[in-house]
Amino acid sequence: MSDDSQIKNLGGGSLLIAWQLKYKNVLIVGGGEVASQRIQSILNADAKITVLSPERGLHPHTKHFIELRNDSIIYLDRSFQGPEELDHMDMVLTALDNHDLSRRIVEMSRERRIPVNAADIPDLCDFYFGAQIRDGPLQIMISTNGNGPRMASLIKTRLQKGLSGVEGQAIVKVGQLRNKLKERAPGVGGQLGRERMKWMTGLCNEWEMEDFTFLDETMMERVLDEGWERGKRVPKREAVGIRRKTSSSLSSILSPILPAAIAFVAGALTATLFLTYPRRK
Amino acid sequence: MSDDSQIKNLGGGSLLIAWQLKYKNVLIVGGGEVASQRIQSILNADAKITVLSPERGLHPHTKHFIELRNDSIIYLDRSFQGPEELDHMDMVLTALDNHDLSRRIVEMSRERRIPVNAADIPDLCDFYFGAQIRDGPLQIMISTNGNGPRMASLIKTRLQKGLSGVEGQAIVKVGQLRNKLKERAPGVGGQLGRERMKWMTGLCNEWEMEDFTFLDETMMERVLDEGWERGKRVPKREAVGIRRKTSSSLSSILSPILPAAIAFVAGALTATLFLTYPRRK
Repeated sequence: MSDDSQIKNLGGGSLLIAWQLKYKNVLIVGGGEVASQRIQSILNADAKITVLSPERGLHPHTKHFIELRNDSIIYLDRSFQGPEELDHMDMVLTALDNHDLSRRIVEMSRERRIPVNAADIPDLCDFYFGAQIRDGPLQIMISTNGNGPRMASLIKTRLQKGLSGVEGQAIVKVGQLRNKLKERAPGVGGQLGRERMKWMTGLCNEWEMEDFTFLDETMMERVLDEGWERGKRVPKREAVGIRRKTSSSLSSILSPILPAAIAFVAGALTATLFLTYPRRK
Repeated sequence: MSDDSQIKNLGGGSLLIAWQLKYKNVLIVGGGEVASQRIQSILNADAKITVLSPERGLHPHTKHFIELRNDSIIYLDRSFQGPEELDHMDMVLTALDNHDLSRRIVEMSRERRIPVNAADIPDLCDFYFGAQIRDGPLQIMISTNGNGPRMASLIKTRLQKGLSGVEGQAIVKVGQLRNKLKERAPGVGGQLGRERMKWMTGLCNEWEMEDFTFLDETMMERVLDEGWERGKRVPKREAVGIRRKTSSSLSSILSPILPAAIAFVAGALTATLFLTYPRRK
């Protein structure tokens, strides 16, 4: 919980959300470079995409997406005709050089209560895009709230340095373990739901993220047998068969002191040589 | 651009977006702990909130928000009555123990094409929430696509370690500089728009993020005079008066070799003492 002055000052930002588009219809008006970036984002979310643009306006990337993903993309080689283009659409994105057309599409979408983003008119957008990191089920979005896309991409680089690269895989395994737990202790919400959540939280807190990546089916069952079934305790990694490479933990102990140790020996040797070297008279 | 196999495999995720809620109406049905978290997220985005919950169902945090932010929150001390509650709403969130009611509210919202999230029924949500980092205009969201909220929060901690804490302030300054640039070279899009963006990108790439935090109004004008006005080059930090603390750059050079240097001297001293210490016969 934030303190009072923080609560009084909450504001000035956006609501960052993970929008669900599976089997939904998304209209992209335009085919240039920005449109190709939109297509990539929308493919990530399993939507059915309609791209509306005369062929001469297609960026090579857009063409490439259309060719490779005709399972998900319908391409219409023409300009935007009128409001009937919006029928059955769940989201509308414009990526056009024509501001007037863009503005009219936004207005039509809003009348129909269809979420809309116009790449060239931020003030009219229901939502913005941002820089993204994806690692399997892990998705991270960086928004500067319109204060500079380049900064978002620089911050993305900083954040990537903080990730070890196993996070996505660890999340997959935690998800699988959670499903197995739900099979043993089924039901939505309630007391049991809270107990499940508490046990999973304890496990995630006590184990290292890397530990989860070692789990196979058999080991997951063992985690449940040794943990959940035995008074809902958190089992030891070793008890379920996780053996982390000792070399890495040894090197992690040695690596900070090794340079100093070498320097100490080098200093001692230098002094010894200096003091014992027979001097000529 | 991704390679072909990557494009063919795009999918399985959400569309992460920054939803705009300024002056929009958001209905939160329920007043428990989850509702209080929703209130915090929505206050961040400057929405007008209506909280609908009998007083006995209010969590202390929810009460606190309602008391402190009566500029943004209307509180109605009663249960959900019917579809008329959704009139004029732009977003609906339920945080209830009553699944049937939650499900009915989702259906009513969907009929009216109002974006809806039901905390207890993920499958019915138009969108999910995730773990968040906020630093002024910088907002970061971490989503595990429903595979474990605890993992999102652990990854949040990892990411925070990668941030220096000045990113938000740097983004504010970059935004101000961009506005000043737009005053000198006004207009939307086109060739000039591309040149502005190219110059800002060059500046953000060549300068350190920390450099921007030193900029005041006068220095910003100097950045434009020495850079944009002089053939759109990137000005040197020193030319606009940014003096980074030399101590920090000195210590950043010293800190990795200092322990080794001390160890070298210690080793030399030890050997000297050992060799020159007068031995008793």
